[in-house]
Amino acid sequence: MTNYKFIVSYSGKSYNGWQKQSNTDKTIQGKIEKLLSRMYDMQIEINGAGRTDAGVHARGQVFNARLSYDGDTIKLRDEINSYLPKDIVIKSVEKADGRFHARLHAKSKCYVYSIEMGNTPDVFTRDYVYELGHALDVDAMREAAKILIGEHDFIGFSSLKNSKKSTVRNIYSIDIDVCDTLMKISYIGDGFLYNMVRILTGTLIAVGEEKMSIKDIEKILRTGDRTLAAGKVPPEGLMLEWVRYID
Amino acid sequence: MTNYKFIVSYSGKSYNGWQKQSNTDKTIQGKIEKLLSRMYDMQIEINGAGRTDAGVHARGQVFNARLSYDGDTIKLRDEINSYLPKDIVIKSVEKADGRFHARLHAKSKCYVYSIEMGNTPDVFTRDYVYELGHALDVDAMREAAKILIGEHDFIGFSSLKNSKKSTVRNIYSIDIDVCDTLMKISYIGDGFLYNMVRILTGTLIAVGEEKMSIKDIEKILRTGDRTLAAGKVPPEGLMLEWVRYID
Repeated sequence: MTNYKFIVSYSGKSYNGWQKQSNTDKTIQGKIEKLLSRMYDMQIEINGAGRTDAGVHARGQVFNARLSYDGDTIKLRDEINSYLPKDIVIKSVEKADGRFHARLHAKSKCYVYSIEMGNTPDVFTRDYVYELGHALDVDAMREAAKILIGEHDFIGFSSLKNSKKSTVRNIYSIDIDVCDTLMKISYIGDGFLYNMVRILTGTLIAVGEEKMSIKDIEKILRTGDRTLAAGKVPPEGLMLEWVRYID
Repeated sequence: MTNYKFIVSYSGKSYNGWQKQSNTDKTIQGKIEKLLSRMYDMQIEINGAGRTDAGVHARGQVFNARLSYDGDTIKLRDEINSYLPKDIVIKSVEKADGRFHARLHAKSKCYVYSIEMGNTPDVFTRDYVYELGHALDVDAMREAAKILIGEHDFIGFSSLKNSKKSTVRNIYSIDIDVCDTLMKISYIGDGFLYNMVRILTGTLIAVGEEKMSIKDIEKILRTGDRTLAAGKVPPEGLMLEWVRYID
């Protein structure tokens, strides 16, 4: 058996998220596991780097899988793609160390959240943006984003009910780019809690709408009080951009 | 009645083209006319600048319509958009001269044809590109494109059966841009014959595959022999980018 590292791109629009579920076969993990299991005539499990929620997209999700195949990786990639639906594409396959685990060994991840501030959405990308439909105070949002950068307990910005594991994460950068009426917020960090990117984005939007202030954000970080943060923004604007494995 | 100039964007994927047809209601013109006729409780006809084929997209198609409305154009735009399906969006509305006609007065148009040369398509744009799946000789294509620029009888690059009208057109520029494995060919001209952009693109691709030469192109221009040109490429790669009304 050879351990492979896969990079996969998908539109989450028609799926109930990455993680396989017993009550639906519309998950990305489920689709890929079913296909690999059929190709190699044995039960194959894959480990994804991040469990993207229902409706969330990925340009560079990573997973690993052990296969009874030791041939050309391009051929492997093309064969898998020929069986996958149009909204899932394997971008690359490479042989990995036998112990490589896509989730446990991930060092950093980048998520990008896209917000359409204008009133006339782009027909060609509207499945991948949150249609907010009004302007935001970008400068105020950039100031607020600075407060979030660094190592903090982000429990107040998560939908976790309770957690025995640490809820401390390190955000390396938050970049807010605006092109015409499209805003893209890029988060790079060592990891993100359940719903964290969508709640952080909702909170930054509230700042951009002058409904919240930097003081409110500081208070959420200090108290961990989930009820103080904004609601989570819709999944269609969120994209798992990439996962890195080197420091 | 006030004459309005509309700019409209649409994904052609689910439509049988721009022009209304008696046997289907899945046309862009048909959808918009039906909606405007219902809004103003009278039969309204619209004039589109270009009759995009089934499956062809538009970022900036232009049409004009006379409406019994004389109010705010933003309000008009937003009201129409609120009734349109997600794959058609009115980008702008402005009052036009009473005699303005979107097709008859068009001075120039830009069409862009997108070709994916790689083996791993972009999930998020694959509905808008032709998935060729192999590399092309870009330099040879650029040389061949130069031959096509200028005023020529393009009958050999058209699907017109016969035409009483002139088949002479002036192509102002053909630009071929490559970014990673995505090629975009932009055609700007005073007008294009039926299927002309798709046949020109098929012919340029044949040059990029070393199946045709500059001499072949010169012969098609000289003889007007349709059988010498390449077949037309699929509609999904084609986009009507813009239409201009000033010289």
